[in-house]
Amino acid sequence: MEQALERVFNPQSIAIVGASEVPGKAAERRTRSLLEGGFSGKVYPINPKRDTIFGVKAYPDIRQVDGPVDLAMVVIPPKFIPAAVAGAIEKGAKGIVIITAGLGESGAEGKAIESEILQMARDSGTCIIGPNCSGMFSGERALNILGIPDIHKGHVSVLAQSGNIIDSLTHYAKSKGGGFSKIISAGNAIGVKFHDYIEYLGDDPDTHVIAMYLEGITCGNDFVRAAKKVSRKKPIVALKVGRTGAGARAAMSHTGSLASDDIMVDAAFRQAGIIRVSNPDELFDIAHFLEICPPPQGNHLAILSEGGGDNSVAADNAERYGVEVPVLCEETQARLRPYLLAGMPASNPIDYGGTAEENPQMITRCCEAVMEDPTVHGIYITGFYGGFRDIIAPHVAELEEQTARELAALVKTHKKPLAINSSFANESYPTLQILKENNIPIFDGPERSMECMSALMHYYEGKRKREALHVVDEEKAVQPEAGPIIAQAMKDGRTSLLEPEAMRLLRAYGLPIGDPMLATSAAEAVQLAEKTGFPVALKVVSRDIVHKSDVGGVKVGLANADAVSDAYGAIMANALKVTEASRIEGVLVAPMAAPGQECIVGMTLDPVFGPMVMFGLGGIFVEVLKDVAFRVAPVTKEEAKDMVAEIKGAKVLSGVRGDSAKDVDAVTDVIAKLSCVAQAHPEIKEIDLNPVIVHEKGVSLVDARIILG
Amino acid sequence: MEQALERVFNPQSIAIVGASEVPGKAAERRTRSLLEGGFSGKVYPINPKRDTIFGVKAYPDIRQVDGPVDLAMVVIPPKFIPAAVAGAIEKGAKGIVIITAGLGESGAEGKAIESEILQMARDSGTCIIGPNCSGMFSGERALNILGIPDIHKGHVSVLAQSGNIIDSLTHYAKSKGGGFSKIISAGNAIGVKFHDYIEYLGDDPDTHVIAMYLEGITCGNDFVRAAKKVSRKKPIVALKVGRTGAGARAAMSHTGSLASDDIMVDAAFRQAGIIRVSNPDELFDIAHFLEICPPPQGNHLAILSEGGGDNSVAADNAERYGVEVPVLCEETQARLRPYLLAGMPASNPIDYGGTAEENPQMITRCCEAVMEDPTVHGIYITGFYGGFRDIIAPHVAELEEQTARELAALVKTHKKPLAINSSFANESYPTLQILKENNIPIFDGPERSMECMSALMHYYEGKRKREALHVVDEEKAVQPEAGPIIAQAMKDGRTSLLEPEAMRLLRAYGLPIGDPMLATSAAEAVQLAEKTGFPVALKVVSRDIVHKSDVGGVKVGLANADAVSDAYGAIMANALKVTEASRIEGVLVAPMAAPGQECIVGMTLDPVFGPMVMFGLGGIFVEVLKDVAFRVAPVTKEEAKDMVAEIKGAKVLSGVRGDSAKDVDAVTDVIAKLSCVAQAHPEIKEIDLNPVIVHEKGVSLVDARIILG
Repeated sequence: MEQALERVFNPQSIAIVGASEVPGKAAERRTRSLLEGGFSGKVYPINPKRDTIFGVKAYPDIRQVDGPVDLAMVVIPPKFIPAAVAGAIEKGAKGIVIITAGLGESGAEGKAIESEILQMARDSGTCIIGPNCSGMFSGERALNILGIPDIHKGHVSVLAQSGNIIDSLTHYAKSKGGGFSKIISAGNAIGVKFHDYIEYLGDDPDTHVIAMYLEGITCGNDFVRAAKKVSRKKPIVALKVGRTGAGARAAMSHTGSLASDDIMVDAAFRQAGIIRVSNPDELFDIAHFLEICPPPQGNHLAILSEGGGDNSVAADNAERYGVEVPVLCEETQARLRPYLLAGMPASNPIDYGGTAEENPQMITRCCEAVMEDPTVHGIYITGFYGGFRDIIAPHVAELEEQTARELAALVKTHKKPLAINSSFANESYPTLQILKENNIPIFDGPERSMECMSALMHYYEGKRKREALHVVDEEKAVQPEAGPIIAQAMKDGRTSLLEPEAMRLLRAYGLPIGDPMLATSAAEAVQLAEKTGFPVALKVVSRDIVHKSDVGGVKVGLANADAVSDAYGAIMANALKVTEASRIEGVLVAPMAAPGQECIVGMTLDPVFGPMVMFGLGGIFVEVLKDVAFRVAPVTKEEAKDMVAEIKGAKVLSGVRGDSAKDVDAVTDVIAKLSCVAQAHPEIKEIDLNPVIVHEKGVSLVDARIILG
Repeated sequence: MEQALERVFNPQSIAIVGASEVPGKAAERRTRSLLEGGFSGKVYPINPKRDTIFGVKAYPDIRQVDGPVDLAMVVIPPKFIPAAVAGAIEKGAKGIVIITAGLGESGAEGKAIESEILQMARDSGTCIIGPNCSGMFSGERALNILGIPDIHKGHVSVLAQSGNIIDSLTHYAKSKGGGFSKIISAGNAIGVKFHDYIEYLGDDPDTHVIAMYLEGITCGNDFVRAAKKVSRKKPIVALKVGRTGAGARAAMSHTGSLASDDIMVDAAFRQAGIIRVSNPDELFDIAHFLEICPPPQGNHLAILSEGGGDNSVAADNAERYGVEVPVLCEETQARLRPYLLAGMPASNPIDYGGTAEENPQMITRCCEAVMEDPTVHGIYITGFYGGFRDIIAPHVAELEEQTARELAALVKTHKKPLAINSSFANESYPTLQILKENNIPIFDGPERSMECMSALMHYYEGKRKREALHVVDEEKAVQPEAGPIIAQAMKDGRTSLLEPEAMRLLRAYGLPIGDPMLATSAAEAVQLAEKTGFPVALKVVSRDIVHKSDVGGVKVGLANADAVSDAYGAIMANALKVTEASRIEGVLVAPMAAPGQECIVGMTLDPVFGPMVMFGLGGIFVEVLKDVAFRVAPVTKEEAKDMVAEIKGAKVLSGVRGDSAKDVDAVTDVIAKLSCVAQAHPEIKEIDLNPVIVHEKGVSLVDARIILG
């Protein structure tokens, strides 16, 4: 698919099926943006009613075009699309961009057309982009079929599911500076999927940062896998809407997207190394910042300003966004002091108020001192710099401009990111222009600027961490013992496994669970209990009894033979009140687990991401505080460790209130192995290991429930 | 103080002590801003070296001014200030604004000068503003001694502790539209305090919204009291820096402010009805929005756009900021549908894509339908409106402008807030100008616009709630039994009360605690236990033993006389290992509390806000999750209810996992009463009631610890 997309983005010829000159029409805007955009290949407008379109020879049918067609854009009513697609394929098109809306997202009729197109495309190996999309753009090829004039060229590539967000982003980029390498409007994404685009952009040398706007994700598991791979190479920033009922309502009616619970999206993005944002301007700001800044080696920031207030605001923002503002070492402070008024702080934040306004080159000196401090990884200037000419006097302008050149040189030399927040960011003073031309980002707000610095620092922190990991995809093979267990349950028409079956299945995948001991008489129960050692618990096993405790089917803490025998009798008597003897498999005899921290490990089949694994502490942590962590399978032990560390109650496992530390390694092993089970058996809808009792050494799996889909 | 400030802000004459013509100097900028600002009263520059300043007759000494001086601004070196203050007072000044820095915040010498000034001011009833401030401004009186030219007039009043933040705010307001009634730079606030300013602005009819920038709060208790009162009348928005170590470092070096833990600030602001923000632009945006929008009657928002993507983003932002986007009733949806393309959602968000770009008056029609729906309390338009002329075609401009006039009329008629987020907000198209002139806020970002709408809706929601409350200040009187208990402990040189003392003190304030039963022999212990009923607990009472359990000084669950007798002996033996008999008061006999939910109620003396009351659930909730709520005393039962509802684990008290609901009323009673104790006894530094066991009916106070300051 990647090679096919490479050809789609580098066509020698483009046919526009439905080309138009009627002002304001979708086809007209796109025909014009292509013709005016400077595309160097051939353009073939297709319109049976016209001889020319914007002075270019038009053809009544794509089949009648003189030469080969590499790329076809289709902007015609749905019912005519299959014929146009067939024609494009006949002419050798590598890609077909379908702008037309009202297909799959509108109902059965549209879905049928989509299927027809897809079949043709599959047979011929053609890429289908869209439908219900707004086109595509390649800065390098001057290929613009988005219908948006004058899109600036740069190194951010956009993958979006909404045309008006692409409009917003390109409009916003014009006012802020910065531009695009590729822009893809994915629309319903029936042919080329998000993960295909992500892989393509991941390998595209002109794309330095990927920015995504998503309404619904298709093939979530592939999406996470592709993003995981690509985010090790370049940053991916994503705005995924539908966090909420109303947001999902708006998104679903827009692209007919499937919705997943938003916490799953959050978890999947975190796992994939995707930087998640909430607004289109934020998406562009962060992507552009990551595009132009040198990669920092850590997250220690030096903050400089002529104002104590601005410094305080910046420092608080830094904390809020997880950026550290350390006290600088005495050596650096000593270097700074000569440039500051007596008593002004050099510790960080650094306040050069009183000196820099009148001689902005003090800023260069201060900046140089912190740039040369190896414990400082990024620099942030806030306040009025850029407008000292207005605040102090016009003659300062020249010194300000010289300072801008010096700051640019410092960034080039030291390769540390420098962000500037200025009250004058929106003025067109030369100082700011010089900085922008040298790829030094200028912001008009203290929060966004710090958010960008944070995203940059955390992206590279995550990248270093991921690079250091030895990533092994967990075993996906189906264990031979497992298949028949599930097959039997399905044959019986059951939607859940009996507990001994669940135990055997989990055991086959290496989960630390004993061989189930099933008794079919009180004597056998006593014998098994004696073998395993008292005290034990007894649990009824019957396809008709899911909630065993509710019917009196569980007895715990049985300390001797008499107690076991009595309990067996009582359980059977209780069970017979709700089902018949032939449907009771027997009674499970289980050793009582030693005390420890109760946890829950589970797995659920997400409609978007497929199997997802869950971890939480037991009881109120899950039920009241919803303090749980999710990941998309496969989950490595390293990722499982992140899950455990992520929950708010994590400290409980390291031993609080006099308790001993618990065996986190053992529980991460359970999580990783459960993810193998989930991957191997798509028939499983849900697994609940509740509780998993974590001891100082090892874990006890006390209860296992497996539901089939 | 309020009347005095009224005169300060309405002077007939102003003397500028240290007036200057030297460009860029603090005195020059302020002299100029006053003279050029249009102030209609008399201006007396004071400068012994000049005959005139900017053409105005100058005086060598303030005492030599011809007429009375209502207000004096002082911009001279510290050592000359006391004489200038004395002179100003002699001339009858009601207020003295001291710009000079380097006083109290710089050390002992400066502090001595401050004391001298304060003494003179107190004797004469003069208001001291500053020192280390940047001046003040009154839009109504054209009084500008801030040194910032052309400050726009409006109804937001600013109280700030940083000059450069005032620069930022006034600069920002110019670009965004909107202006100021009063601006006060409070500086070190040695004379007039924050709470004085708040009370004055609260009663000032020209101030519709108060915006504050704070580095450190002085007289925190008075501050909260004043803000609580004023926020019932008009909104207070505040940016308080120093959330973090680095932020506090920057703020402290700036104004020498005292720092309180930031969670206390959060709690105090919430209690006082203050809207807390983090950035200066946010401070102005929210204040201005609250100034110009009509008050909404609820927090249901209708969202409209021509783009599904923009709608999704807006809906997600709404959720994030606690604004509801309900599905509209069928009646309203039916009214909307004729203006939408077939299949476009009318449920909310409303997507008029395809119709409104070409005929923007569709927006009026849609807006009218939602404005007339009584269940909709606010309207939010997002997307490209304002720039359809660019997106579609120039001829749309006229219809867009007409729509703006219609929207303005709708807001006037229906008195519901309307916010517009537009990609074209920063263009100067007439459509946007018309809206701005009609006080319809225009934003250039989806997040800030929603944040403002949220602040507006939540402010009025809180205001309605506070208005509905019958506020009674809790009893502050010292209970007669309480005084001698504390006096005795102090006399003994103890820093904590013995448990029986603590119990008697709390009992005096109505806390549900039994009369302490102290036994000095095993027999007496048995007798007391028999009286109260088994089982009981025994606890050693000694001034030398604070951590009773650690030394074997506590025995619980004693079920009969023998057990009590044995326990008494064991406890005494253990106690004698760490102290001598004469320092053991005896052993406390306490009935065992029935089981229930363990909570913690406490009180701590905050350096800024004074006594603060704390509530949390016991165990890991406090120790691991830090899930606690604080309030500044006095705390009413209503406020205590908010505290209980505020913690994340609140649901635990309403009964989870089969547990019964607990007596929240009883625990709020404990909180409110503890706040009375805290208020009555400033000598108390800390109270810990841990645990407070909350039953289905009532509470048990099992342990009481009171530490003196």
